[in-house]
Amino acid sequence: MGKLLRELAESVGARVEGDGTVEIDSAAPIESAGPGQISFVANEKYAKHLETTAASAVVLHFNQKSSHPAILRHDNPYFAFANILDILYRDISTLPPGLHPTAVISESASVGQECTVGALTHVGPESHIADNCVIFPQVYIGAKVEIGRGCKIFPGVIIMDDTKIGDNTAIHGGTVIGADGFGYARHNLGIKKIKQIGWVEIGHDVEIGANCAVDRGALGPTRIGNHVKIDNLVQIAHNVEIGDYSIIVSQVGISGSTKIGQSVILAGQVGLVGHIEIGDGVTVAAQSGVTQDISPGKTFFGSPAREKMEAMRIEACLSRLPDLFKRVRDLEKAVQSDQKDQPPPE
Amino acid sequence: MGKLLRELAESVGARVEGDGTVEIDSAAPIESAGPGQISFVANEKYAKHLETTAASAVVLHFNQKSSHPAILRHDNPYFAFANILDILYRDISTLPPGLHPTAVISESASVGQECTVGALTHVGPESHIADNCVIFPQVYIGAKVEIGRGCKIFPGVIIMDDTKIGDNTAIHGGTVIGADGFGYARHNLGIKKIKQIGWVEIGHDVEIGANCAVDRGALGPTRIGNHVKIDNLVQIAHNVEIGDYSIIVSQVGISGSTKIGQSVILAGQVGLVGHIEIGDGVTVAAQSGVTQDISPGKTFFGSPAREKMEAMRIEACLSRLPDLFKRVRDLEKAVQSDQKDQPPPE
Amino acid sequence: MGKLLRELAESVGARVEGDGTVEIDSAAPIESAGPGQISFVANEKYAKHLETTAASAVVLHFNQKSSHPAILRHDNPYFAFANILDILYRDISTLPPGLHPTAVISESASVGQECTVGALTHVGPESHIADNCVIFPQVYIGAKVEIGRGCKIFPGVIIMDDTKIGDNTAIHGGTVIGADGFGYARHNLGIKKIKQIGWVEIGHDVEIGANCAVDRGALGPTRIGNHVKIDNLVQIAHNVEIGDYSIIVSQVGISGSTKIGQSVILAGQVGLVGHIEIGDGVTVAAQSGVTQDISPGKTFFGSPAREKMEAMRIEACLSRLPDLFKRVRDLEKAVQSDQKDQPPPE
Repeated sequence: MGKLLRELAESVGARVEGDGTVEIDSAAPIESAGPGQISFVANEKYAKHLETTAASAVVLHFNQKSSHPAILRHDNPYFAFANILDILYRDISTLPPGLHPTAVISESASVGQECTVGALTHVGPESHIADNCVIFPQVYIGAKVEIGRGCKIFPGVIIMDDTKIGDNTAIHGGTVIGADGFGYARHNLGIKKIKQIGWVEIGHDVEIGANCAVDRGALGPTRIGNHVKIDNLVQIAHNVEIGDYSIIVSQVGISGSTKIGQSVILAGQVGLVGHIEIGDGVTVAAQSGVTQDISPGKTFFGSPAREKMEAMRIEACLSRLPDLFKRVRDLEKAVQSDQKDQPPPE
Repeated sequence: MGKLLRELAESVGARVEGDGTVEIDSAAPIESAGPGQISFVANEKYAKHLETTAASAVVLHFNQKSSHPAILRHDNPYFAFANILDILYRDISTLPPGLHPTAVISESASVGQECTVGALTHVGPESHIADNCVIFPQVYIGAKVEIGRGCKIFPGVIIMDDTKIGDNTAIHGGTVIGADGFGYARHNLGIKKIKQIGWVEIGHDVEIGANCAVDRGALGPTRIGNHVKIDNLVQIAHNVEIGDYSIIVSQVGISGSTKIGQSVILAGQVGLVGHIEIGDGVTVAAQSGVTQDISPGKTFFGSPAREKMEAMRIEACLSRLPDLFKRVRDLEKAVQSDQKDQPPPE
Repeated sequence: MGKLLRELAESVGARVEGDGTVEIDSAAPIESAGPGQISFVANEKYAKHLETTAASAVVLHFNQKSSHPAILRHDNPYFAFANILDILYRDISTLPPGLHPTAVISESASVGQECTVGALTHVGPESHIADNCVIFPQVYIGAKVEIGRGCKIFPGVIIMDDTKIGDNTAIHGGTVIGADGFGYARHNLGIKKIKQIGWVEIGHDVEIGANCAVDRGALGPTRIGNHVKIDNLVQIAHNVEIGDYSIIVSQVGISGSTKIGQSVILAGQVGLVGHIEIGDGVTVAAQSGVTQDISPGKTFFGSPAREKMEAMRIEACLSRLPDLFKRVRDLEKAVQSDQKDQPPPE
């Protein structure tokens, strides 16, 4: 089921440089690829492997120098390579189609056409799963859950009551959607739980990684927009809103009621306090702690986070801080000896 | 099943200001509430919505200005609102009562009166579940586990052997209680596992969020006191002790054998090293890293964490650090030119 | 089934000091141990309990002063104590042996001799579990998974297709192995998922804690070496490699394609960016953020992480930073008044 390189080129809109007749049957990393395999270089760190790779073909940017005998040129080689992977690797499910006899599906639930519901999965009352979904084994779906078309819900995912999920969304193993938010009122006799009566809404074409927690809203929804990509072990508290196309990297924590704009990037282990607004197109660097609103388009880092230029200036100063102490000491000595040298004021 | 506002007022000890005869059937956030709904303002950020809200009634502090026609006044509006939610929203289980036929319950286990044990849940030998518990589907309960009355154990929770849980405690989806602690002895041939023979004890009225990990003690117990509230994705290592009424926010990590006092607040993503003691009433700000004992009542922040006043003073200095470098450079120039201007020492 | 102290001494290569005939039947922490119990002191913080402990015997380093009547002396008391625990506490499974009737095991899967496969566990097609494994209830094993001899897979663990695991490896509850890595190509129409066609390889004698996420490689493997110990809630991204004997503490996050050498220690909540190399024997202190390669043997800390000596020097300066501002202000005053005192330049 291999493809000729020129066929791949045509499918993904790339230009062949060299031999378009090599046959490609799979893909591999540039440093380990062999005959019949295609690879790519998009990060300059890996360009050194270009001269020695045994890959039959490589996908490169027009500017990337290489004497490889079979190159696909594209102005976004990573994107072209992604499309090639889709051609070479079909989704072949290893799960038997249909509803597994050990799945526990409520009589008032509905499952659409061409769905798989895996072994030992639970689907609660009045929940609806649209067509073409793959619900893996051991998933928990509570009551009144709506799941759109073409979704993939991986093993061990827990989707609590009232969650709404759009089309073509994937949720990876062990993630919990719709657990109670962390809401308590302190009073003189102790700590009173605020009943969490809200829900979670997730858009279409969203991907959520493994072992995340997305809490239901306290009163209204927690909302994840369309095309949002969330990595593993991310915490999204109650009433958070995340705009379309935002990217949330692993171990980020977003506190309650914070609003994230569109196309925001929160790098790994970032934390945000509650009740703030992060504008469209903002980037927050890894491990930063955001304590205030950020205007659209800004880049922030540090804990507490500052605007990038300011944070970098401070970082640079820190490296020279021990030296600054020395310089101040020298100044103090100089000034002291100056004062000794000077005639006393009359 | 609505309530008159004056009935709600009486139930929660609030004072009606305006029309006590409006009928309330549900609750909603101040910005989206409509007719028949009650809302509240406890955070000044949301007070702006007071003039435009379509809520039929609002719960406010005595000092909060508002011309709303139907107000409940209370000195702790968030607490009053929490009690109103309990009145308006009853717990209605969507799980069938009793033991689900697909649950795997050991013959030597016991389950009390008025309990639900969900589908596909496992209850191991010699485990005892007291009255009025809801054990959701797909829970794992190992051997010799004790669960008190009125507990809620959500889907996918894993409770390993020998765990003891008090009354009215809730554990949310995917949390793992009683996995082995992280204990190894290094030796010249490698790394030797220390068998973890302890257990976990959890008090009453505790709530633990989703996808947390609470490890069993190495030899003795890991102990979580009464009324402790733990958010999602929190790590509690072996032999940790947490005092009553403490609040542990999302993604906190507490290392082995550390003792947390009563009414402590650890904000999000805080890390604590092992073998330290945190006094009663301590607050640690988000993302802080605590490396030493903290005396009762103190507030700490930073990584490494310092007392609040000191940490804030340093933070303020950091913002002015680039400027300080400039000032020192200016001083150096001034002193140098002084020295040039001065007559040479004789 | 107790042992005489001198029998234990012989088994673990320790020297008896005092009464070797005391009978030991269990172990306990030094502060709570009683008659019939053995304890140990390896951390000086706990030495104060030595004089008051009711333990029948204690394991101590040769240099540790104590007048206890029954001491086992060893140059690595923690290691000796670990071996004593193995003698006193046998692994007694509370799971029925064999394949539980509610387990869903593919016809094309194989399970070796002397294995337990717990209730409600799923084993997919063409997966092979070697001899002497304990697979707990509610585990998900996908297709074409290889699990070596003597492994323990705890409840709720999710092992996705194509994962390879060596001998004597343990994976704790809720951990997800082989979910898709976080790989997307941005393009002008949005965000394109890079199909994750790689896999995960885990060595022998590895232990992985609860609720971790170890992603499959994008094209090739994500690799965890032999004797690696990983704590709870750790994130290991696609194509990461971790060398033998490395120790990864709780809540660490390792970004894609980063290579960790042998015997590396990453303390709690450390984050590493992608595509870097951490040399053998490196230690990274808790909460550090590593943004660059680290040479073998170095110790780093801080966010961003610096070499230990430099980071400590900066830390020390920070404490004195408010004072430095005062000193600079004093200097400015002194220089200004100097300039006033001086005769004007002619």
